[in-house]
Amino acid sequence: MDAFTFHNPTKIVFGKACVAQLGQELAKYGQNVLLTYGGGSIKRNGIYEDVMAQLKAAGKNVVELSGIMSNPRTEKVQEGADLCREHKIDFILAVGGGSVIDCSKFIAAVAKTAPDYDWWEHMFMKRENVTDALPFGVVLTMSATGSEMNNRGVVTNWELQKKMGGYGDALYPQFSFLDPVYTYSMPHNQMINGICDMLSHLMEQYFSLPETNNLSDALIEAAFKNIMANAAIAIKNPEDYEARSNLMWGATLALNGIMGLGKKQDWMAHQIEHALSAFYDIPHGAGLAIVHPMLLRYIFKNHVPRFVRFAKNVWGLSEDEYANEATLALAGIDALRAYFKSIGAPTTLTEVGIPAEALPKIATSSNRYPTSYTNFTTEDILAIYQSAL
Amino acid sequence: MDAFTFHNPTKIVFGKACVAQLGQELAKYGQNVLLTYGGGSIKRNGIYEDVMAQLKAAGKNVVELSGIMSNPRTEKVQEGADLCREHKIDFILAVGGGSVIDCSKFIAAVAKTAPDYDWWEHMFMKRENVTDALPFGVVLTMSATGSEMNNRGVVTNWELQKKMGGYGDALYPQFSFLDPVYTYSMPHNQMINGICDMLSHLMEQYFSLPETNNLSDALIEAAFKNIMANAAIAIKNPEDYEARSNLMWGATLALNGIMGLGKKQDWMAHQIEHALSAFYDIPHGAGLAIVHPMLLRYIFKNHVPRFVRFAKNVWGLSEDEYANEATLALAGIDALRAYFKSIGAPTTLTEVGIPAEALPKIATSSNRYPTSYTNFTTEDILAIYQSAL
Repeated sequence: MDAFTFHNPTKIVFGKACVAQLGQELAKYGQNVLLTYGGGSIKRNGIYEDVMAQLKAAGKNVVELSGIMSNPRTEKVQEGADLCREHKIDFILAVGGGSVIDCSKFIAAVAKTAPDYDWWEHMFMKRENVTDALPFGVVLTMSATGSEMNNRGVVTNWELQKKMGGYGDALYPQFSFLDPVYTYSMPHNQMINGICDMLSHLMEQYFSLPETNNLSDALIEAAFKNIMANAAIAIKNPEDYEARSNLMWGATLALNGIMGLGKKQDWMAHQIEHALSAFYDIPHGAGLAIVHPMLLRYIFKNHVPRFVRFAKNVWGLSEDEYANEATLALAGIDALRAYFKSIGAPTTLTEVGIPAEALPKIATSSNRYPTSYTNFTTEDILAIYQSAL
Repeated sequence: MDAFTFHNPTKIVFGKACVAQLGQELAKYGQNVLLTYGGGSIKRNGIYEDVMAQLKAAGKNVVELSGIMSNPRTEKVQEGADLCREHKIDFILAVGGGSVIDCSKFIAAVAKTAPDYDWWEHMFMKRENVTDALPFGVVLTMSATGSEMNNRGVVTNWELQKKMGGYGDALYPQFSFLDPVYTYSMPHNQMINGICDMLSHLMEQYFSLPETNNLSDALIEAAFKNIMANAAIAIKNPEDYEARSNLMWGATLALNGIMGLGKKQDWMAHQIEHALSAFYDIPHGAGLAIVHPMLLRYIFKNHVPRFVRFAKNVWGLSEDEYANEATLALAGIDALRAYFKSIGAPTTLTEVGIPAEALPKIATSSNRYPTSYTNFTTEDILAIYQSAL
């Protein structure tokens, strides 16, 4: 295992009706709370009332910021930070999925900077460690990004057509409440995108050096299979509590730092996907379902033993049935792509309306950096996009 | 999954020569440090020098408490707490394995109480949550107990012949440094005991309700197999860095709270073992290797599907080869016992010098409580001991 430092101080409160305990957590923080959420579905499914009851019982002054969009944008971060300054906000409570949480993380960070601070440049382009932020907590309504228990987030600068990740020691939520029942009303497509996202997170960690018999690899394989098994149940019956609870915790665990310890973690599929959604605003999970298998196909020949392990341990394929290791490795990747297709995720760019002629510009825009597996050029990224048309 | 709360704020610094970063962690705490360790092996293997160099460079005033024994005793806790009061200790640095860490946790807790406080009664007999303690950190030298990343510990009151566990929010280490190289010089027997201990920790979580297709169960199976695979390598070559690193992180993960989330966790094998070592001072891991398989044999008939899963997923046994589910379930338990024997752990009480006539008294002394699987009587515990003679 590679050397690592792990320190994740987020408190998780998990289970049916856990939000009944929210008030006692809120009591530890100041009076003025910014409540952040998305398009208003929480007002239709009762979550808004649950949360407001807790805020009211805790005697908080609540300011609301609604309308946080999927792929949250810089303008929304700025709007939230301005609200924090204006209302002397002490604490931010994010109610939603990854987009709401990511946006809230950077609202919390930007609120602590001077009004003229070029936070986009520092936090995203230079990726400086964010060491100061308002404290914030989460009530999770979607299983997908893991943002509820990590210190990173992604924001889109639509003007620059850049979707970038930032991170920092101050960006761990103080707490996150995970009630699996809250995910019952998630739209079907969002559930599917979430499943693709959590599996992709596991693969970003798994497909990287070292390739020794690492405990983290074994845990990832176990989680990957458990997520698929529970996804099958939840797709059939969205109100299966056991399946939803496993998916909810699986998504959190897939990106809270634990699963990839001792691994380099390459995260190139995410870079390649971010460029797509920066231009076409497609859901992140859908973009990953399209590009991740094709990225793996593009690189597998240099890491055949790892892909053979994936084919055997995750997909149950047997070397007896394939001519050689390379064909077995490829069959594992094809099984992944077939799986995404089988649950209704898009697997081509055409399906999400991205045409061939747009790809050179997107490829040029994609972040790239040397990873443990590869050192992509713009041409490599373009080739991956083109293979996914 | 059952409801749960998880909040583990311990910082882990892992890897070869990681102790070079100890000074910068120590800088966050006060000047007066109590350095705690065991029988002095750290002076022979160079770890003492590494740690002292960091303490010195950080400009600390160091008071030493050595001689912490395996199965640490109340007298040693009291001695440490008295030293803390006398020298106005700000921070405790524990260098060792589970015994040193557990003892240091309660030194940290008792140091914050009034000198006449009956801490044994409150912290152990009544198991009150310890909410105040001196801050403390760990340099780990043994892979076994997981105490380096949890909030509990076990102390023996030799006078009362009681070995009891205590816990508390204030008992998480501030940090733990895990250098796999530091475990190279661990005596062979202690390595074997440590392997038994970590596997037992996983089983205490695995063999409990609920028995649904829980992500935690899948992670436990993966960790169990990875630990056995890496143990085989480390037993042959104690200086295999990859194997040692996996064992070290595996032991921590086996008891840092993550693996059993959503499970009730029964922990009865530990209770039954603690009674043995309270009377005979045998190593905890050795006691577990003896009693855990026999406890499982005693209870498996009421939970056959779970034991069938264990037999198949952990031991690779196939239902085709067994007459029925019960014989398959039993074969899995026998495989466990045979495994302990194969690595040189004791599997009978006779081997560790505990005679039949001592068992009734020990059984009476064992803690017992209703668990998700069983509600043991003293007679049940005696029967388990007798089956392990």
